Amino acid sequence: MADRRKRGRAATDSDSDSDPVQFKSKLKPDSAILQTLRNLKSAASTSAAATKPLSLTDLNLSTTCREVADLPLASVQSTIESLVLALAHSILAGNGFSFSVPSRSAANQLYVPELDRIVLKDKSSSRPFAAVSSVRKATITTRILQLVHQLSLKNIHVTKRDLFYTDVKLFQDQTQSDAILDDVSCILGCTRSSLNVVAAEKGVVVGRLIFSDNGDMIDCTKMGIGGKAIPPNIDRVGDMQSDALFVLLVEKDAAYMRLAEDRFYNRFPCIIVTAKGQPDVATRLFLRKMKMELKLPVLALVDSDPYGLKILSVYMCGSKNMSYDSANLTTPDIKWLGIRPSDLDKYKIPDQCRLPMTEQDIKTGKDLLEEDFVKKNPGWVEELNLMVKSKQKAEIQALSTFGFQYLTEVYLPLKLQQKDWL
Amino acid sequence: MADRRKRGRAATDSDSDSDPVQFKSKLKPDSAILQTLRNLKSAASTSAAATKPLSLTDLNLSTTCREVADLPLASVQSTIESLVLALAHSILAGNGFSFSVPSRSAANQLYVPELDRIVLKDKSSSRPFAAVSSVRKATITTRILQLVHQLSLKNIHVTKRDLFYTDVKLFQDQTQSDAILDDVSCILGCTRSSLNVVAAEKGVVVGRLIFSDNGDMIDCTKMGIGGKAIPPNIDRVGDMQSDALFVLLVEKDAAYMRLAEDRFYNRFPCIIVTAKGQPDVATRLFLRKMKMELKLPVLALVDSDPYGLKILSVYMCGSKNMSYDSANLTTPDIKWLGIRPSDLDKYKIPDQCRLPMTEQDIKTGKDLLEEDFVKKNPGWVEELNLMVKSKQKAEIQALSTFGFQYLTEVYLPLKLQQKDWL
Repeated sequence: MADRRKRGRAATDSDSDSDPVQFKSKLKPDSAILQTLRNLKSAASTSAAATKPLSLTDLNLSTTCREVADLPLASVQSTIESLVLALAHSILAGNGFSFSVPSRSAANQLYVPELDRIVLKDKSSSRPFAAVSSVRKATITTRILQLVHQLSLKNIHVTKRDLFYTDVKLFQDQTQSDAILDDVSCILGCTRSSLNVVAAEKGVVVGRLIFSDNGDMIDCTKMGIGGKAIPPNIDRVGDMQSDALFVLLVEKDAAYMRLAEDRFYNRFPCIIVTAKGQPDVATRLFLRKMKMELKLPVLALVDSDPYGLKILSVYMCGSKNMSYDSANLTTPDIKWLGIRPSDLDKYKIPDQCRLPMTEQDIKTGKDLLEEDFVKKNPGWVEELNLMVKSKQKAEIQALSTFGFQYLTEVYLPLKLQQKDWL
Repeated sequence: MADRRKRGRAATDSDSDSDPVQFKSKLKPDSAILQTLRNLKSAASTSAAATKPLSLTDLNLSTTCREVADLPLASVQSTIESLVLALAHSILAGNGFSFSVPSRSAANQLYVPELDRIVLKDKSSSRPFAAVSSVRKATITTRILQLVHQLSLKNIHVTKRDLFYTDVKLFQDQTQSDAILDDVSCILGCTRSSLNVVAAEKGVVVGRLIFSDNGDMIDCTKMGIGGKAIPPNIDRVGDMQSDALFVLLVEKDAAYMRLAEDRFYNRFPCIIVTAKGQPDVATRLFLRKMKMELKLPVLALVDSDPYGLKILSVYMCGSKNMSYDSANLTTPDIKWLGIRPSDLDKYKIPDQCRLPMTEQDIKTGKDLLEEDFVKKNPGWVEELNLMVKSKQKAEIQALSTFGFQYLTEVYLPLKLQQKDWL
């Protein structure tokens, strides 16, 4: 048994291993890598400047598709007031009242390749107050409009849970107030954050970024290892300044912690951001704002499994149940830096650090291969095919097998040097 | 149907309701409430100064119970080196080698009322290398000692997951490396954070606190709404300064957000902290450090359900599976401010904002009534009895029924004014 263990150890033992050294020796001086990154950044900002982001109007889709926009509080207020005035006129004219509500069902969703995101088609339904089947929903819609109007007057932010508790007897169940809140967004044509209803925060950011959070200036190079919690309300975030060359989007907090402790952003000027798993709305809005205002390339470090790619897709193309808000929530053109399925062999990740994919994993992988956002990127298709074929996955942490700091000292610098992103 | 709704609405409608106003009218000027808080703080700091925290030695338990301590890195290093030297001597003397490992099982745990926490009794077991039943564990123990020694030499922090991946072939499963990491803590007599193995962060802090995170000075009054993410590695946290009168420990992030947005800490100088649900190690260490260094009273705002009280107990008395480290992880003397079962009637929380307790909730509540940390506080027993009897629970958010800012503008100020904590 001791013998077997010895052989096992010889293959995995870490810091003195020859394989990782082989890769370390390939590293050029940082100045060369920095030049690569400067080129990447200037390409990103040139393309951002040259190509005005396409809108539905540019594509002649504005009459058949709809999207919501970030509206200032005053517009939200006046839009609600005009709407309610119209309802009052209708009631006074003896016609009762009714809402026209855009459908958010899957049948009314459309992936637009030119925009690289999902939008809503133009189907709407009528929600009359004077009909047994819709009186409840019409009532809840009116009440939510009233509450949201209050929020805009007071200029405070609340969560969906808070909203629910303001009238439990009417709403009965939070799924009901949540769903109608989304309806109200679509009716008013504005984002949920414009309504001052926010999601709980869970993301953190650290690195070469200065921004204001509710009037306080935050310097993210001076946030220690913990970093700055990403604020739940993006409308209070502003004045972004940065000398970073790229944004490093990280799936997991363990990798984030390694990068923050090693102050990776001082060696390669960057902004490091993570939502600690499944992306929340606040982190998605924050990432998009960084990309848009700072015109920085975004490189993603995720696990090599279908779930990692799925997370990437939520950042890039949005989630299906918020497709009406895809323009404001999505960050275009994120590069898949790693860990990619081809990295497993390339970086000689030992077999015992790879995990077998479950049936569900493989199914998710195959489903992803059918998604438009994957199909349009041949490199991604190739990687995903390799993953599904090899039936192996690996976490970012698997790199620790070559030493705790292999990620920051060898893997990432080499990836950047070789422009090894897709 | 419209009629029934109307009656329902009349009972719950919020901002113009008479009940909440009744409580608002009870509020004295802030100066009076501040005086109450100053008294609370000076009592807390006097008692902290007068009563040196009891240790196992004070209670004559040092030979029958054991605890671990925060050790500086250099001590961890030298302790490992001495241990390994002793093993080498033993091998050279022809005796092979063996570890003496403190038992962490429930049978070896003891609640010490004077300390108000769970500690380990003195049972140990032998883990010889030259025995089929323990050769694997002895090998893993040796390997973990080597890895932890590396961490102390490099002075970097890693997660348990990273540790696992450094030798997957040997560890096979993360539960194995995790369990033996806890053994190694007990063998060396130091905390897991002293070993530089940290948990992922999830807590945030905002308010009247200045501290250093890895050398960066952080002013938590200038952290906007998002707040500062609590660092995973408490050993890099220092230089705490504060003019706060108390620490407000909040269970949920929605309530935290309300407090941060309303800058509650400017009206009543305090430090607001939340672990967003179940307390993680980093937040527990951070809370304890604040309490110890700043000698501030800690008031807790949790849901009125058994789970809220359970969370309080983890902060105060520790969790059973880390009882060997209870002295370093627990914060003594946390006051239960709200939401308490008696508040539901007192503040006239409408029926529809209360939730029926499940069978499991009731069982958990009854189990809590048997716990020593509850029994020693008659006020808590009374509240918990009321909860179990009424079979009703309520979330902090239920206060939103009286208006979004009822929590910060009426409920909390009145609680503080009336010294209504247990």
